[in-house]
Amino acid sequence: RIDADRLWDSLMEMAKIGPGIAGGNNRQTLTDEDGEGRALFQSWCEAVGCSMGLDQMGNMFARYEGTDPDALPVYVGSHLDTQPTGGKYDGVLGVLGGLEVIRTMHDQGIKTKHPIVVTNWTNEEGTRFAPAMLSSGVFSGKHTQDWAYDRVDAEGKRFGDELERIGWRGDEVVGDRKMHAFFELHIEQGPILEAENVDIGVVTHGQGLRWIECTVTGKESHTGSTPMHMRKNAGRGLALITELVHEIAMKNQPNAVGAIGHIDVYPNSRNIIPGKVVFTIDMRTHLLDKLEAMVAELMEKAPKLCEDIGVEFSAEIVGQFNPPAFDEACVAAIREGAEAMGYSHRDIISGAGHDACWINDVAPTAMVMCPCVDGLSHNEAEEISKDWAAAGANVLMHAVLKSAVV
Amino acid sequence: RIDADRLWDSLMEMAKIGPGIAGGNNRQTLTDEDGEGRALFQSWCEAVGCSMGLDQMGNMFARYEGTDPDALPVYVGSHLDTQPTGGKYDGVLGVLGGLEVIRTMHDQGIKTKHPIVVTNWTNEEGTRFAPAMLSSGVFSGKHTQDWAYDRVDAEGKRFGDELERIGWRGDEVVGDRKMHAFFELHIEQGPILEAENVDIGVVTHGQGLRWIECTVTGKESHTGSTPMHMRKNAGRGLALITELVHEIAMKNQPNAVGAIGHIDVYPNSRNIIPGKVVFTIDMRTHLLDKLEAMVAELMEKAPKLCEDIGVEFSAEIVGQFNPPAFDEACVAAIREGAEAMGYSHRDIISGAGHDACWINDVAPTAMVMCPCVDGLSHNEAEEISKDWAAAGANVLMHAVLKSAVV
Ligand SMILES: NC(=O)NCCC(=O)O
Ligand SMILES: NC(=O)NCCC(=O)O
Repeated sequence: RIDADRLWDSLMEMAKIGPGIAGGNNRQTLTDEDGEGRALFQSWCEAVGCSMGLDQMGNMFARYEGTDPDALPVYVGSHLDTQPTGGKYDGVLGVLGGLEVIRTMHDQGIKTKHPIVVTNWTNEEGTRFAPAMLSSGVFSGKHTQDWAYDRVDAEGKRFGDELERIGWRGDEVVGDRKMHAFFELHIEQGPILEAENVDIGVVTHGQGLRWIECTVTGKESHTGSTPMHMRKNAGRGLALITELVHEIAMKNQPNAVGAIGHIDVYPNSRNIIPGKVVFTIDMRTHLLDKLEAMVAELMEKAPKLCEDIGVEFSAEIVGQFNPPAFDEACVAAIREGAEAMGYSHRDIISGAGHDACWINDVAPTAMVMCPCVDGLSHNEAEEISKDWAAAGANVLMHAVLKSAVV
Repeated sequence: RIDADRLWDSLMEMAKIGPGIAGGNNRQTLTDEDGEGRALFQSWCEAVGCSMGLDQMGNMFARYEGTDPDALPVYVGSHLDTQPTGGKYDGVLGVLGGLEVIRTMHDQGIKTKHPIVVTNWTNEEGTRFAPAMLSSGVFSGKHTQDWAYDRVDAEGKRFGDELERIGWRGDEVVGDRKMHAFFELHIEQGPILEAENVDIGVVTHGQGLRWIECTVTGKESHTGSTPMHMRKNAGRGLALITELVHEIAMKNQPNAVGAIGHIDVYPNSRNIIPGKVVFTIDMRTHLLDKLEAMVAELMEKAPKLCEDIGVEFSAEIVGQFNPPAFDEACVAAIREGAEAMGYSHRDIISGAGHDACWINDVAPTAMVMCPCVDGLSHNEAEEISKDWAAAGANVLMHAVLKSAVV
């Protein structure tokens, strides 16, 4: 069994870097705080004898040797970057839970045949640089590295330049590593496990996602002196599409969601009718056909709604992944781990995207989830208990030891 | 008659300061560019022998002496500040049109009994520091100076500090001046005069306004893993209220408008359901009863719409003025000017708020309007013709000379 206190202390220590304003974290990708978090993680890995690899996307790989130098490593990990108003566990638990597995093996002198590698994937959140899971996406061949380097943040700064600036661009070619398996521990970020009082979620599938960046174009003009019938109010396009997205998600229940989280209004002045609104629709479900039908309905209806009120609609997909089905043997290893250790468990679909969703395409992959309070995540108030964290890390260790062969 | 080319050249010269990105201007109040525009205006005023007064709100008063030093001055003017994506004429025409009246009198050796004062009112637009017409509001006793000084911009900078910083805070007590009359020339900012091919709008009334800053509070959470029925999506509150505002304006036709120009979404991340949206509703009409009924309907329905979707609604009035009726003698002077000079004219209600709407409470006041292309304003593409500008300035001069007694 892992050391629950040590895992918790490390989570709290990491949370000191890039504190938020309400008890959570703002340690966005490729900021100075991200660099600090990485250095702390590296120092912890080196303390238990790991060697650190770093690829050209800044992905970190802390390797703990096994007994067979030719065996492919078993990978574990997640991400250390956070949302601007993020929690202390989203991603971090998976990285430090992986480290805790190594620390426990180190303490107890456990050796596996396969090496174990703890990974920190760069820019999982995708807030600063869309899309999410950018670097595991490059690793698994979904995006080219050049394209990833050219992603820009709201201030126009390039991903490639910022990676260089914080000093965490490595030399290793991205995606060259071959994996025996990949396991990711993550908080559920949803309410199901807590509501059902279940310790462990055995993740069998993930939701697919589409991020649709929409631009509604009207005409900037004076709110006071432009008669109602002469207006082209782009803000009304946003309003109608907000409700359309909600309706589409509702009629595709269960297991479908849709919302608009990002909205920029131009020129955003109290007495100017919005001439342009740019916003991103997030739509998800775990069935590919349904996901495509949801997007198709949106793309059919949104332009008409806009046309009816005299504004123009255009859209571009800026992030997407199809619903993954995880590797049966890896999923079974997690289920067995929960069984063996006496934790209650249930199969679950991941609502959020995870690096594991991309890695699933290039290696046998599975995920283990633990509950979080009120299902709340992407919120500084995100909370879990020490016991939940420990249960997740214990099941992770069980699956890893099984896969890496003690 | 005024010199149309000289007026036009001055407009173009002023437009070089704080150029926009699409042919218009971004010379927002109390920026360095505002300071530059003020200095240019002052140099022009001094060149025709005016003395410059400056009050503690940064209002500028260029005085051209008359024959009777004890006679109260006739004031003309408007504002030199612009919207972030503003035009070259909104406000500026009224200031430089006033200057052109003085230049013409100076050239032709015309002397009036009453002195003439050309005014530049600080922060008419209200974009950077709400509310609009801030300094004419302090002048006419609507706001206290301390309250005005404490207005903050989006970066948290105080009005008082920024006024000091750009070096345009004067010593004169605000509102101490007494006026014989006040005349403001302004572009219509609406489509009526151009559509009817009329040269001059004789402004009899203005619309009253309410700026209602609303906060819709939901709960930030993950767009992927929060089931639909557990969401508190503040963005939906914005959507429903956007349409409510539109409906209220439509059912109060004619001469009523409503829209939302300013929207801030928190935390504004693609995969976070908006936990809070702050936005400002702009509602106007020229009848006080109707205006109050519109606001009452909003304040009754908006909280219910929000309650139905599980989010909270709160609101605060951040700007307001009641519909002004201008002074009959001043209005008649403008109508006679248009008649005398052979311009086509019609009575009109001002859609926008103007400094004249506040000054109307402390001095006999009227406004003259000229058409603008497509009724477009608060847009960099705002356009007028040289002839329209000249007609407006000629009518302004006629009214001023009549009021100031040649
Ligand atoms: N786990 C997580 O929040 N990932 C970010 C990508 C997503 O929006 O699902
Ligand atoms: N004229 C003008 O645009 N004034 C700003 C105040 C308003 O919004 O009406």
